[in-house]
Amino acid sequence: MSSAGATLRALRASKPLVHQITNYVVMNETANATLALGALPVMAHAREEVEEMAGLASALVLNIGTLSPHWVEAMLLAGAVANARGTPVVLDPVGAGATTYRTETSRRILDRIEVAVLRGNAGEVASLVGAAAEVRGVESISAGMDSAELARTAARRLGVVASVTGPVDHVSDGERVLTVANGHALLGAVTGTGCMSSALTGCFLAVKPEQPLEAAAEALAAFGVAAEDAAAGAEGPGTFHMRLYDALHALDPETLDDRTRIGEG
Amino acid sequence: MSSAGATLRALRASKPLVHQITNYVVMNETANATLALGALPVMAHAREEVEEMAGLASALVLNIGTLSPHWVEAMLLAGAVANARGTPVVLDPVGAGATTYRTETSRRILDRIEVAVLRGNAGEVASLVGAAAEVRGVESISAGMDSAELARTAARRLGVVASVTGPVDHVSDGERVLTVANGHALLGAVTGTGCMSSALTGCFLAVKPEQPLEAAAEALAAFGVAAEDAAAGAEGPGTFHMRLYDALHALDPETLDDRTRIGEG
Amino acid sequence: MSSAGATLRALRASKPLVHQITNYVVMNETANATLALGALPVMAHAREEVEEMAGLASALVLNIGTLSPHWVEAMLLAGAVANARGTPVVLDPVGAGATTYRTETSRRILDRIEVAVLRGNAGEVASLVGAAAEVRGVESISAGMDSAELARTAARRLGVVASVTGPVDHVSDGERVLTVANGHALLGAVTGTGCMSSALTGCFLAVKPEQPLEAAAEALAAFGVAAEDAAAGAEGPGTFHMRLYDALHALDPETLDDRTRIGEG
Repeated sequence: MSSAGATLRALRASKPLVHQITNYVVMNETANATLALGALPVMAHAREEVEEMAGLASALVLNIGTLSPHWVEAMLLAGAVANARGTPVVLDPVGAGATTYRTETSRRILDRIEVAVLRGNAGEVASLVGAAAEVRGVESISAGMDSAELARTAARRLGVVASVTGPVDHVSDGERVLTVANGHALLGAVTGTGCMSSALTGCFLAVKPEQPLEAAAEALAAFGVAAEDAAAGAEGPGTFHMRLYDALHALDPETLDDRTRIGEG
Repeated sequence: MSSAGATLRALRASKPLVHQITNYVVMNETANATLALGALPVMAHAREEVEEMAGLASALVLNIGTLSPHWVEAMLLAGAVANARGTPVVLDPVGAGATTYRTETSRRILDRIEVAVLRGNAGEVASLVGAAAEVRGVESISAGMDSAELARTAARRLGVVASVTGPVDHVSDGERVLTVANGHALLGAVTGTGCMSSALTGCFLAVKPEQPLEAAAEALAAFGVAAEDAAAGAEGPGTFHMRLYDALHALDPETLDDRTRIGEG
Repeated sequence: MSSAGATLRALRASKPLVHQITNYVVMNETANATLALGALPVMAHAREEVEEMAGLASALVLNIGTLSPHWVEAMLLAGAVANARGTPVVLDPVGAGATTYRTETSRRILDRIEVAVLRGNAGEVASLVGAAAEVRGVESISAGMDSAELARTAARRLGVVASVTGPVDHVSDGERVLTVANGHALLGAVTGTGCMSSALTGCFLAVKPEQPLEAAAEALAAFGVAAEDAAAGAEGPGTFHMRLYDALHALDPETLDDRTRIGEG
């Protein structure tokens, strides 16, 4: 049984700590999205503390958007602690498919760490299952199969819940495929909104770790509803971006389920 | 005699350079707050230049929010130059108490560098004086003593002006305790507002280095007044955040002292 | 023949990938400006992938705002690939003249890499041609010659198109000097607007690589027009900053040439 409203209510009551090892471009943005939603973000990447911090967190979000060897090492160290403690891990394979280093690092993390949810665009996820895909920088240009099939295939092959975002999102555990039809086109005009959706996936997983399929879909739906609210009254990507934090902060657990468009298909 | 208005007027006339070695999450935000107030920010952290840059600055702000060994080394190098030149140093011990690395690094900086003002939340500052405290990530959950007592104790034990921010701020030199009752609850919903208050403390210290107690309190009061202005008309943390820069830029030295609520208690 | 409108139309049709190796302070901002304009930004700096990414891009933007040795090495590696492929390179020598490391690194990049456009403020550019200049942090306080002469001299001595921004911008290939009189004073109250202008220079160069003089002037004019639009209705630097992305996104290729104030003089 899935209720984004109930999960959001639980999140705001418990204020889980969500440890993020993410890229330089979006650190402020994912921290603010996490905080606006009602959870507590923390960014820490030094070998000297990353295991201790991961041990304190209720979810761990790994994002390779501006990766380099020290940061990858930090991700593996933190991931191992999270796995040992049963803390859910989200991986955002930013730009997988664009360079060999990104594709191979994503695969290495997936090999070594038990990832609960892989959240990426179609091109990134397709690259990780070896399907034909075109990724230009960090944008998905094309993927070799439709998104529902891609999500199901990635979930099966990689042993994760695959959360493939796009105009309609598809989330699969390898059996079921949930669709999420919330969101707004302006999300594509702001850098880091994909990364934010991964951070919020971590937030929802933190309070619903036993149901990663539902938690991942609820996170995307809640983020999409906030984007719909933010777009109303926005004059472009800049004002939309700021209003997105207002909208996440204002999300009402009582009415959220009436607005989410989560389907199964 | 303390006048935030007079200090702000002097700052805008001299446009002091404020060197900041800070964390990845808030660099843009503290630079923009510094610039909106009327000072000149510069971020530089490479061993190759950090001493030269510190030698050019009127204040140095050290912030351990995303620390790693190279950055800590840069802080120590820059701090030594600042000390040798009599340039005031602000330390923001982000997340002290959350991990051993953060607590020990904060102590190491306090041991090696003469810090004029230590600006942190209650949990962080309590951790540095060995009091019971709970820090979740970078948020203060609880501290083992009340904030006024904590500020006084920290100032005495650590040989600094201690600036403990919260719903009401307490700033102490170990003898006097100034309270600052400006601010707004939305500050807690935006990442990096604590870091901004540390950056602005550096700005005020740059023009009032002989009176760190007053400068620190005035900085918090000015920031709090700007937050009050920003909150009027904001629809949530995103629009508040943007309006905060507008409000810092619009702060009027003529009327500021009528609005600051600095007390002694 | 120069038409910012035609170049913008071509850019939005081809969505070029613009690889940016830039500073921590402005990464989000230059990515968002690039995306709002209609191009695709990508940030990548690891030795492991920087050459591959540069090989995929239509322009490369190098910015030394928070330089350190690993990042400089990445810039040289990426620059060599860009040169080998004929991809245009923009250099933003942030803070050249403020520290020896910044001045020398800028010169080293200019020595080793064929830079199409050098975009900086007057103090930075003057420092690189050995003229008297004062740079405070990253702000130009004074330069030893007037901007038109400086642009022409820098272009000749350094073998680049020199794009010197200020209240009026001057862009020269060593023979001609184009002036750009668009813009707004609030650009000086927001961190990273210079860096954004360098990123947008890269975007324009990506679709007009054979005419770097015109492309550089058109980029500054388009950015200036957006700033004029953003200032209308802004209440200060924060709301201006957000509206700047709205305005870049809303730039109309049909009317842009009526509004750009590009002259020759």
